[in-house]
Amino acid sequence: MNSNLPIGIFDSGVGGLTVYRALHEHLPDERFVYLGDTARVPYGTKSLTTVERYAIENSRFLEAHGIKLLVVACNTASALALPAIRRALQVEVVGVIGPGARAAVQQAQGQKIAVIATEATVQSGAYAQAIARVDATATVIERACPLFVSLAEEGWADSDVAQTVASRYLSDLASDIGVLVMGCTHYPSLRPVIASVVGAAVQLIDAGEATALEVEALLEARGLARAPSEQLARPRKLCDDLDHFYVTDAAERFARVAERFLGSAPSVIEAIEVWGHDELRTN
Amino acid sequence: MNSNLPIGIFDSGVGGLTVYRALHEHLPDERFVYLGDTARVPYGTKSLTTVERYAIENSRFLEAHGIKLLVVACNTASALALPAIRRALQVEVVGVIGPGARAAVQQAQGQKIAVIATEATVQSGAYAQAIARVDATATVIERACPLFVSLAEEGWADSDVAQTVASRYLSDLASDIGVLVMGCTHYPSLRPVIASVVGAAVQLIDAGEATALEVEALLEARGLARAPSEQLARPRKLCDDLDHFYVTDAAERFARVAERFLGSAPSVIEAIEVWGHDELRTN
Repeated sequence: MNSNLPIGIFDSGVGGLTVYRALHEHLPDERFVYLGDTARVPYGTKSLTTVERYAIENSRFLEAHGIKLLVVACNTASALALPAIRRALQVEVVGVIGPGARAAVQQAQGQKIAVIATEATVQSGAYAQAIARVDATATVIERACPLFVSLAEEGWADSDVAQTVASRYLSDLASDIGVLVMGCTHYPSLRPVIASVVGAAVQLIDAGEATALEVEALLEARGLARAPSEQLARPRKLCDDLDHFYVTDAAERFARVAERFLGSAPSVIEAIEVWGHDELRTN
Repeated sequence: MNSNLPIGIFDSGVGGLTVYRALHEHLPDERFVYLGDTARVPYGTKSLTTVERYAIENSRFLEAHGIKLLVVACNTASALALPAIRRALQVEVVGVIGPGARAAVQQAQGQKIAVIATEATVQSGAYAQAIARVDATATVIERACPLFVSLAEEGWADSDVAQTVASRYLSDLASDIGVLVMGCTHYPSLRPVIASVVGAAVQLIDAGEATALEVEALLEARGLARAPSEQLARPRKLCDDLDHFYVTDAAERFARVAERFLGSAPSVIEAIEVWGHDELRTN
């Protein structure tokens, strides 16, 4: 495997940019290829079969592009489709659930862990299972907070509306838990309101952040880290021309929401059709 | 054309059930075949090309099923894809934009008309164009209210959150308009909070309701109305076994949200793959 190859990041849409940002911060020497499946977003209300199908199509596109590692930034795809993606790909695949679960157990120190995520992720029980693998005695509460996604995309993450919604979803948890895992890529955008509802005593885990740290360790262990480049300006800029961005639809909207999420947007976003690469149909 | 054939209703998901309900109330002798494209919902954030593609796939599925008329319940699909659907199909196609626009002009009596809809519908300008065709002097304000969809699906249509969100979106319109078109199938679920924000002096138009009335007139004009059945119990029940429901994914979630929208859910919901019927790829 060539360590100069980029890292692939696949997400159902724009939310995975929070994972891209974390990877970018921790691994400034790496290059990234991001694919947002904006033609079929969101995944969080869809079934196992459909999420698997979409996830495999997207992952194959990125593998064909040439990557050294695939990061599944989407929590729903990580929760439902990781085994299927691993069977379909040659390159190593990292999801966000395992890293999020490990970070949660580490921080919880025996206190209760809450996981907030999409409907599909919660129904899959993937976080509870991943946490149980690390600490069989851990108590886990999972809860879907679907409105957080729309609030983040609307740019209302710090509004009174977000505050009211967060209270409805989370206020009863505050006194009960030690750690809260933000198990959907959109939720870190609402971090301030989530923190204000659950209180300072509850530690918030960003699954994307935890994933970036594990990817760093993995690249090091595999000898796959890219060598630092002398010419590279530091700090490297988010969305600079060294990274590539693909979407399956509506590139303009992606750029607009990316600006909200990152404070900057890629100058070039290529629209592609992953279903043209789909081999599932004929299998 | 056989008047005993059912009427096809296609929607991006579950929201079109509000149009089904209106059709069902006004046309109790008719049978309906409903297709919700839950594998690819929502359409309101997607591009023209993608919405056209999805809409044609879905419409062809329903035509192949055997229908006498197709109602495009989804405002976004009606706004973006009606010409493409009409080119692709043999049967007559009715969208919701034209009926909504005509009802608005009729009620407005020269006052300003506001249209609330998805981002894609607003960007298309379809309502403004349709209204201008009826009354070139009409003043139209279009506004996207994306959070209304999540609120309706979450079952929070009458919550304090919905009230706050509606105020943010609409409070400045109250004194300015005579008519407000609810140009997205989900919005009629929020009718009470929308009405409380814009005030009793503003008339609310349900595009689905307006469409049901035009479909009634059309069937009569074409001699395609189904003859009343003696054996049929009155009033006919919503979601009874005379109507058929198809989804492209996640039938369970569809049933759950249908219950919220209609107060009842179909006992049988068939999951199908419309992309198996897609001829676009080889054209």
